[in-house]
Amino acid sequence: MGSVRIKRANPLTILLGTSLVVFIVYFLFVPSSSSASRPAPPSPFHKTSTGVRASPPPVVRYDMNSVTVTKDPEQNKEKILILTPMARFYQGYWDNLLQLNYPHELITLGFILPKNKEGNAATAALQAEVAKTQKGPIDSRFKEVIILRQDFEPPLTSQDESERHKLNNQKERRAAMSKARNSLIFTTLGPMTSWVLWLDADIVETPPTLIQDLASHDQPVIVPNCFQRYTNSETNQDEERPYDFNSWQDSQSARDLAAKMGPDDILLEGYAEMPTYRALMAYMVEENKGMHHEVPLDGVGGTALMVKADVHRDGAMFPPFSFYHLMETEGFCKMARRLTWTCTGLPNYKVYHYNE
Amino acid sequence: MGSVRIKRANPLTILLGTSLVVFIVYFLFVPSSSSASRPAPPSPFHKTSTGVRASPPPVVRYDMNSVTVTKDPEQNKEKILILTPMARFYQGYWDNLLQLNYPHELITLGFILPKNKEGNAATAALQAEVAKTQKGPIDSRFKEVIILRQDFEPPLTSQDESERHKLNNQKERRAAMSKARNSLIFTTLGPMTSWVLWLDADIVETPPTLIQDLASHDQPVIVPNCFQRYTNSETNQDEERPYDFNSWQDSQSARDLAAKMGPDDILLEGYAEMPTYRALMAYMVEENKGMHHEVPLDGVGGTALMVKADVHRDGAMFPPFSFYHLMETEGFCKMARRLTWTCTGLPNYKVYHYNE
Repeated sequence: MGSVRIKRANPLTILLGTSLVVFIVYFLFVPSSSSASRPAPPSPFHKTSTGVRASPPPVVRYDMNSVTVTKDPEQNKEKILILTPMARFYQGYWDNLLQLNYPHELITLGFILPKNKEGNAATAALQAEVAKTQKGPIDSRFKEVIILRQDFEPPLTSQDESERHKLNNQKERRAAMSKARNSLIFTTLGPMTSWVLWLDADIVETPPTLIQDLASHDQPVIVPNCFQRYTNSETNQDEERPYDFNSWQDSQSARDLAAKMGPDDILLEGYAEMPTYRALMAYMVEENKGMHHEVPLDGVGGTALMVKADVHRDGAMFPPFSFYHLMETEGFCKMARRLTWTCTGLPNYKVYHYNE
Repeated sequence: MGSVRIKRANPLTILLGTSLVVFIVYFLFVPSSSSASRPAPPSPFHKTSTGVRASPPPVVRYDMNSVTVTKDPEQNKEKILILTPMARFYQGYWDNLLQLNYPHELITLGFILPKNKEGNAATAALQAEVAKTQKGPIDSRFKEVIILRQDFEPPLTSQDESERHKLNNQKERRAAMSKARNSLIFTTLGPMTSWVLWLDADIVETPPTLIQDLASHDQPVIVPNCFQRYTNSETNQDEERPYDFNSWQDSQSARDLAAKMGPDDILLEGYAEMPTYRALMAYMVEENKGMHHEVPLDGVGGTALMVKADVHRDGAMFPPFSFYHLMETEGFCKMARRLTWTCTGLPNYKVYHYNE
C-alpha cells in the first residue's frame, strides 16, 4: 500500500492550485545498423503522405485515410494507446508491459503521476525503465512515451484499509481518479489512435496476447476479470481470489437504492449498508466455457479495460461526479451506454493485481 | 444556408461506418532571413528542455513545468487552441481569424469537417487559405493547423428553416454536433494548451483582441454575446439583432418543465410549446455598463466560447445525450458546473454571425 497522506480533495484547490507539469518523452526509432529491420518512422517535417520527400517545408500534409478499428489490429497496423495512472512504480507492471507481444512500434504509452514525494519516486523509477527499454532491442521499444505530472489524489491513499474504505473517502478518491483519467485521455488521444487500453499500475500479470485477445472480440468496451494471487496461510497453497468488483450487471435492488438517493449520492460495491445484489463478474468464472466467454455488463472496472478510441471521441469520459449514481469507471460504462455503445466482460479471461 | 441533405443520424451508422480521415497539417516556423525576429520553435528531436542540444537521440524529455492559465496569457506566452466545426467555408471567418492580434505563434487551429460533398468543398477552400497564410508574413502564421475529416451531421443541415427547427431534428442535430465537438477536443487538446476558444465557422466579426479580452476575466468558461448584422428592409438601415439564444440563466419554469419530462427529453429555447422563461443573455445588453460587464450563466452557446483547458481536462465535454435535459453547449455548461467550475456571460461584448 502507498504511504501517501490523505488530503481533503477540495476540487478547486486541486485544480486551480495545481501546476500541470508535463514531461513528454519522445523516442525516435533510428534503427541501428545491426537491427535495421524496422523502417524509420515518417517525420512530419520531411515527408509527404505519399513518401515523396517534399522540399522545402513549410507545408506538409498527412492524409490518414485508414484509421481502422478491427478484430485483427495487428494485421491492420492499428495504433494502441496504453494509459496508466501511476502513484507507485511496480517492476512487475513494467515487466508485464514489456512481454506484451503486440508490436511495440504501434503502442504509445501515456502515464499520469501525482506531484508529491511518492509520485516523484515513481516517476524516477518509471523513467529509468523507459530509458532502458527505449535504448534496448528495437522490437521492445515503444512508439512514444508521454509522462504527465499533475496533482491528483492517488489511487492508493492510505495504509489504513478501513479509512480508505469509508464512503465519503471513496467518493473523493474516485472523483480525483476520474479527473486524472480524464486529463490523461484528453491530452494523449490522437486522431490516429484505434484502441485505448487502460491498464492500472498494479497489474503485474496478463497473457502476452492481451491486446490481440481483447480486440478479437470487436467490442467497443471490454474488460477481463481482475484477480489476485496469494498464498493461503492455512494450507500454504498458492491460490487466487477476485480483486476488482466494479464489473457488474445491474440489479433491481441497486436500481431501487438509487431511486431513493440524493442527486449527488453514489452506489458502491462492498458496503454492507448498501446491498446492491448486483451480479459481479468476479464471481462469474465458468472455466468450461473458455477464455473468450462474453457477458454483457452495466458497470466496468478500470484495472484493465480496452476501449475503441471512437467511444472516447464521442465524449465518453470518467464522471468525477454522480452520473446515474455512478462514478469513474462504473460511470464511464453508463456514459458509453448513453452514447449507444455496449460494455462486455470476459469472466474467464484473467489478469492479476499486485499483492501488497 | 447549406444545401446538405438531412440524413437520419443513426449514431451506429455514423460512428461505426465512418472512415475517420485525418489531415494533419504542420507548419514550421522557419524564419526567413528578412523577418527573423521570431525564434524557431524547439524541435522535440534535437533539443532538450534546457535548450542544450542532445546528441544523439533517442531519448529526449520535455519538462513543461510552467503551463499557466492567467488573465494575461500573452505576457505568459500561453498556448491557445481555437476549435471550429466547419460545414461551409466563409471567407469572413478566415479574415476575422487572421486579424486576431493574439500572437499567432501561440495559436493552434483545429477543424473538423464532414465527409460529404459540401465538406470536401469547405476543406479545399480552407486548405487553400491555410496554405496562403502559412506561406505569408511570419507574424500571420499559426503555430499548427490540424484538420480532421469525419462524418458528422453538419451544423446547418437544411435550407428549410422550419424543418431544421423541428424538435426531433434539433435533438439529432445537436447530438451529432456534440460528437463532432467531442472528437475535435479529445484529439487536439495537448498537455501544453492553456485555453480553448470554440469559434463557429460562421462567426465573421469579433474584436481583434477577442482572446485577450475574454482571458482578462480569468473565468473558467466565458461567452460573449452573438449578434447578427442585417439591413432592415423597411427603413433600409443597417441594424443588428441577437442571434444565439443558448446563453441563459435558468428559471423556475424551465425547472418545472424539466421535472415533468422523460429522461431522454431535452429543453430547447425558442419553442412556443416549451415556454422556459429563462433569462436570455441575448436580451441583457446594457451598454452603459461597458463591454466587460459579467453575468453568471447556467447555459452557454458555442458560437464563440472561451474555456480554460483544465475544464476540459477534468472531463467537461458536450453531451450528445440528454444531460439534466440539456445537450451540446448547454449541457457542457451544466457539466462544467457539476465539475465545480462556473460559466460567465458578457452581454455587452458582441461577436457577429454571418448573415445568410
